[in-house]
Amino acid sequence: MKEISGGVCAPKGFRAGGIYCGIKASSKKRDLALIYSEKPCAAAAVFTTNKVKAASVLLSREHISGGVLRAVIANSGNANACTGEAGIAAARKMAELAADLFAINPRQVAVASTGVIGVPLPIAAIESGIEALGNSLRGDEAGHAAALEAIMTTDTRKKEGSVEIEIEGKPVRIGGMVKGSGMIHPNMATLLGFITADAPVELTFLQTSLNAAAQKSFNMISVDGDTSPNDSLIIMANGMAGGSVIDKDSPYATVFQQALETLCIYLAKEVARDGEGATRLIEVTARGALSHNDASKVVHTIISSPLVKTAVHGCDPNWGRIVVAAGRSGAMLVESELDLDITGIAVMRKGVPMPFDMQRLSNELAQEQVSIEINLNLGDNSATGWGCDLSKEYVSINSDYTT
Amino acid sequence: MKEISGGVCAPKGFRAGGIYCGIKASSKKRDLALIYSEKPCAAAAVFTTNKVKAASVLLSREHISGGVLRAVIANSGNANACTGEAGIAAARKMAELAADLFAINPRQVAVASTGVIGVPLPIAAIESGIEALGNSLRGDEAGHAAALEAIMTTDTRKKEGSVEIEIEGKPVRIGGMVKGSGMIHPNMATLLGFITADAPVELTFLQTSLNAAAQKSFNMISVDGDTSPNDSLIIMANGMAGGSVIDKDSPYATVFQQALETLCIYLAKEVARDGEGATRLIEVTARGALSHNDASKVVHTIISSPLVKTAVHGCDPNWGRIVVAAGRSGAMLVESELDLDITGIAVMRKGVPMPFDMQRLSNELAQEQVSIEINLNLGDNSATGWGCDLSKEYVSINSDYTT
Repeated sequence: MKEISGGVCAPKGFRAGGIYCGIKASSKKRDLALIYSEKPCAAAAVFTTNKVKAASVLLSREHISGGVLRAVIANSGNANACTGEAGIAAARKMAELAADLFAINPRQVAVASTGVIGVPLPIAAIESGIEALGNSLRGDEAGHAAALEAIMTTDTRKKEGSVEIEIEGKPVRIGGMVKGSGMIHPNMATLLGFITADAPVELTFLQTSLNAAAQKSFNMISVDGDTSPNDSLIIMANGMAGGSVIDKDSPYATVFQQALETLCIYLAKEVARDGEGATRLIEVTARGALSHNDASKVVHTIISSPLVKTAVHGCDPNWGRIVVAAGRSGAMLVESELDLDITGIAVMRKGVPMPFDMQRLSNELAQEQVSIEINLNLGDNSATGWGCDLSKEYVSINSDYTT
Repeated sequence: MKEISGGVCAPKGFRAGGIYCGIKASSKKRDLALIYSEKPCAAAAVFTTNKVKAASVLLSREHISGGVLRAVIANSGNANACTGEAGIAAARKMAELAADLFAINPRQVAVASTGVIGVPLPIAAIESGIEALGNSLRGDEAGHAAALEAIMTTDTRKKEGSVEIEIEGKPVRIGGMVKGSGMIHPNMATLLGFITADAPVELTFLQTSLNAAAQKSFNMISVDGDTSPNDSLIIMANGMAGGSVIDKDSPYATVFQQALETLCIYLAKEVARDGEGATRLIEVTARGALSHNDASKVVHTIISSPLVKTAVHGCDPNWGRIVVAAGRSGAMLVESELDLDITGIAVMRKGVPMPFDMQRLSNELAQEQVSIEINLNLGDNSATGWGCDLSKEYVSINSDYTT
């Protein structure tokens, strides 16, 4: 597996673009994106588990149930969530506008939205910009970059990647982009993530692979504990790399699955690193749990704890907060069995505090990436997840958003 | 029921005091408190559900299982949590030191600690100060105030109260003090809370009453979602008001229970109002839920959401965040049934956004207390809870604690 450039345009047959159509009226930044495949794609997706779902999620779930997509249209600056029936109609119109560009069935278009909640989507702006959006499509990195810019909100970094693997001697490519830095606590998905592949992948295996990859990547990150109603992760595989179809019994099932998982973990870490106001990436691993679910609970509770996040922010070696977060996670644990290491420094063994150099740990906590490892010493299950520190900047960003 | 002054010293036969003994070496503020009853008390308590429990909690749970207490000794500046066997020995020593003052059984002394986690308790400081602490006891408001000061950490307000009710024509008094402003997300208890009463209360009824009161008060507040390993709420009733014993069949059971609940709700709101960095109290009520548990989940998720808390802080009428928090709470809800009112202003009816004056709502959000009411319109159950806004000050306080 090798890293390549190009993002969602790296796989054969995909074109992408992004323009400003008038939704982000205050900043006039790009706000409308399109990803298009020359050929029909096998498509799979995971969506938010929030009971409050954006109109785009409800519509895309319906369209993707058909198993075939040709395009995704996405806007930023407005979430089209909590917008009632009018929101559904607007999402449907978005799909139709994109479909008309290529004379394809609107059911082969997925829709995604991100931005402020509860404000009617200005569909007239999208209507007026659709022609220009169609004309902006390019099959190269510039097309990918324009589309990615057009789905960003409070993001400060572009989260993107693409990999190449070899199957039956042919290069197969998978590319992706994600956006998200606030309201990030995905549960079965992340904010917006679009992945393209030119591998010929059988539909059921594509969905299974995406579920497994999401579970280890986007479902293991948290910025602020809030799950968005818009979370959507969509994969489209158009088969243009050629070769035999990859299904669960294919000799190439594992190599495809691993490449997808690697890309998703990379992208998920990029989201955590770019959490609103974040200055550091926190990687938490829990080992020795009685079940994977327990390990996962411990990881989630630690990466979500405001007290752990502020301690890391302040380079404060206040490790007790980590143990206490594990204690309230709901996972089975026994205090006298716990081992804790922070940035490789042992601070607790079998529930007993270890002597350590506070100043050295404080210095280590100032690094860009901070690792926390907790061993429950009860079983064989482990999990890893990613979060970020909590800064005053997070409060600034979120105290003044709609007004 | 009338409000009176005196706190834990308002009921007959209770004395209290607080001194500086050397634990809070940097600030030299009071750090050791004692509450003592002339006569043995029926005693009940609720403790943290965190699987990591402070030594004081483990010891007090053991002592209170006997049903009788004469005193509570408490320190601030050190949580005596994550301190292994040495911590248990230190807690036991604290109880013995207090018991020696009055020549009583150490099992009749409860112990409580609050402060930094994972640092050995400086028991020598407590030993050297115990005599002075014993001499400082007073049966008046000044004794209560000194004890309360000695259990405070990042608290900026004194959280205290006392009420008087009449039973069989005699005045009966209940007084209380609590501390806590960070790591507040009680689950079966709160940080430290001590309640005294001179009513003659039967033991089982006392515990039942405390459980019920805690459920509606301390278990319904959150500052930061983190549950402390030290949470302890202890009540001591010494019967010195005289009259018949109050048990569940007593004609005075309800009046006692209501007085205790009123005091606990008052104290719990005081804790939420004094949340670390908080500038505003947020009161959330969920109605129309299919079960009480569902109503409670909605309330807890809304008061814990960083995005709701920062929006209130910034007086940002970004109401979608409230609906979305409810959506991820795990409670059964249907978006098209939801009603939402903020500070009495209708912003959503049956899932449809209502036109409202953004500037007026923003002004209302600047008030000291902000009410949020959500109606699921599915059933008859409701719950109310309290939280606070999230400010940059919270980050400051918690980024620089141990160092």
